[in-house]
Amino acid sequence: MLNFTFYNPTKIVFGKGQLVELDNLVPSNCKVLIIYGGGSVKKTGVLDMVKTQLGTSNREVFEFGGILPNPQFDILMDAVRLVRQQNIDFILAIGGGSVMDGTKFIAITAKNEEFMGREEEVLNFGFAGVPAEKSIPFGTVATLPATGSEMNSGAVISRGDDKLVVMSELNFPQFSILDPELTFTLPPKQVANGVVDTFVHTTEQYVTYPVEARFQDRTAEGILNTLIEIGTKTVEEPENYDVRANLVWCATMALNGLIGAGVPQDWNTHMIGHEITALSGIDHGRTLAIIQPAVWKVRRRQKADKLIQYAERVWGITTGSIDEKIDGAIEETEKFFHSLNVPTRLSDYGLDASFIDKVIANLEKHEMTALSEHGDVTLDISRKILEVAL
Amino acid sequence: MLNFTFYNPTKIVFGKGQLVELDNLVPSNCKVLIIYGGGSVKKTGVLDMVKTQLGTSNREVFEFGGILPNPQFDILMDAVRLVRQQNIDFILAIGGGSVMDGTKFIAITAKNEEFMGREEEVLNFGFAGVPAEKSIPFGTVATLPATGSEMNSGAVISRGDDKLVVMSELNFPQFSILDPELTFTLPPKQVANGVVDTFVHTTEQYVTYPVEARFQDRTAEGILNTLIEIGTKTVEEPENYDVRANLVWCATMALNGLIGAGVPQDWNTHMIGHEITALSGIDHGRTLAIIQPAVWKVRRRQKADKLIQYAERVWGITTGSIDEKIDGAIEETEKFFHSLNVPTRLSDYGLDASFIDKVIANLEKHEMTALSEHGDVTLDISRKILEVAL
Repeated sequence: MLNFTFYNPTKIVFGKGQLVELDNLVPSNCKVLIIYGGGSVKKTGVLDMVKTQLGTSNREVFEFGGILPNPQFDILMDAVRLVRQQNIDFILAIGGGSVMDGTKFIAITAKNEEFMGREEEVLNFGFAGVPAEKSIPFGTVATLPATGSEMNSGAVISRGDDKLVVMSELNFPQFSILDPELTFTLPPKQVANGVVDTFVHTTEQYVTYPVEARFQDRTAEGILNTLIEIGTKTVEEPENYDVRANLVWCATMALNGLIGAGVPQDWNTHMIGHEITALSGIDHGRTLAIIQPAVWKVRRRQKADKLIQYAERVWGITTGSIDEKIDGAIEETEKFFHSLNVPTRLSDYGLDASFIDKVIANLEKHEMTALSEHGDVTLDISRKILEVAL
Repeated sequence: MLNFTFYNPTKIVFGKGQLVELDNLVPSNCKVLIIYGGGSVKKTGVLDMVKTQLGTSNREVFEFGGILPNPQFDILMDAVRLVRQQNIDFILAIGGGSVMDGTKFIAITAKNEEFMGREEEVLNFGFAGVPAEKSIPFGTVATLPATGSEMNSGAVISRGDDKLVVMSELNFPQFSILDPELTFTLPPKQVANGVVDTFVHTTEQYVTYPVEARFQDRTAEGILNTLIEIGTKTVEEPENYDVRANLVWCATMALNGLIGAGVPQDWNTHMIGHEITALSGIDHGRTLAIIQPAVWKVRRRQKADKLIQYAERVWGITTGSIDEKIDGAIEETEKFFHSLNVPTRLSDYGLDASFIDKVIANLEKHEMTALSEHGDVTLDISRKILEVAL
């Protein structure tokens, strides 16, 4: 097992009807800004329910809507200005990963006056962590199980074609309310994307190389097995509470630091996927379904030990040669994504070889030239992965 | 899945050589009290290593040793007086569950002047949580993997024959350093006890009844499978880092709230076990090895679904009748405890039927008259469990 630090102070309030806890969780006698996305929270009535809860104690409530998928810097800066002008004390994000990630950027940027006028710099620290010591405290009401943002310290922000990472311990929400019933109205496509996103968050931390981290491996396998069991069911039966609750909790657990503590991590698939989304608009989760199998095909030797473990323990492929096990595991994974109506090839989206050059150029621009758990995936290898994914 | 709240703000610093992080983790320019147990930390040199680290920055360091297993109220009160007299700012516990649990009691009791002169009351809130809003901040250096106290909000304190529970969110350590190498010098018996303790912490939250909590079930099974793989090995090869690291991390994960979130919990075995320890002095972990199999024998109908799942997934018993699977799982569990040289009968300790009356009297005194995940284990059923355990 590798040395590690694990720290995650977010309070999770999980289950049916937990919105009633909002009045206890949000400070009273203060100014609260509610941040949300494209307006579905109005249609579903969640926004009204939240405002009713916040209205129980003395709070001045502001609203900022319109944080769309792949949250854009310029829009987030509008919210930053609102927070500064109104001296907001607490932010409540209602939505999925984009709203939560956008809120994290807003909370840090608004509070640190030394960033004023040069807020774009905040984006440039990437995985090194933003050098900030304060932020506006915030909580979340999660309505889309996928990114894990409700219980982690990362955020991904867009600026034009660029997707950039904002890391900070200040990014941990004070609390997150996870009521699976609030996700019942999601379109099937978004639920399927969430299943794939959770699956690949897990494999990025699991299909690497063995380091005798048995708890972490088995927990990762538990998430993968659960997703395989419930994946199509939760897409087809959106109001089946039990299966949706398992998706919601797995999505949180897949990216809160737990299964990644003390093990190597890959993230090759995510880094290539981010560029594909920025250039083509293909949903984040769907880019992962294209790239993850291709990474395994190209990197089957480097990942052989864990691919075999994955084949045996997750897919039950216990006979055959090493290559047969690996091939079987990749094939089963693709079949699983297909069962969710998620394609696994660039060509399924009408993209051809000319697109690959653009992705490679962006990877180079963002210095993504030494990816994977070994740091040895060069631009040439990324190109090969993309070619296999055509 | 049941509704739940999950909150755990303890920072874990895990791995070889992590004591060097102490200077960053403990506040500087303040008074620090080191609390430890019977003196093994002096023999092993850990106390000196800690003092060297603390001496790096400006700190006045005090020591309080002698917190023995089943930490006694009177001794803990001596430490409370020292903390009050010296105006200690931070406490550092070095040891296993008893030292950490004792420190939790000391940290709350010393800080809350309203308890002064009536400190025994802190013990009387039990599972309801001590109504305190402040405590002396503390961290731990864990030297014995077993109780999970390094990352949870509970403590068990002894007062004569009574074992009592102190619960509070203030009981979370600010940090815990878990260096598996610091546990290499433990006697084999204590390591074996730790394996059993971790195992039964897990089964108390797992072998109950199904509630469609797939992540929690699989994580619990992951801990159990890991303990079965590494149990005898880590007893026999104390300096094998990899297996010991897995024991240390499983011990923490088994009782930090993770596998118990959203599922029913039993704790019947622990409540009976506590009384046995208080009356006979048998080590805590060893009482669990006596009682857990007996609970399953007596409660096989109420726990049938999960006992079958346990048989199939943990022990690989996939054929046979329901009763054969349950019998097989109980038998394998007992064999596992025996492989660690941990007996599974009261008579192995020279105790006979006359002892049972004393345990039942204590259970009655402590109002343990409605135990288990169903709250339906009466004193009569506890007596039956003890008779089966003879």
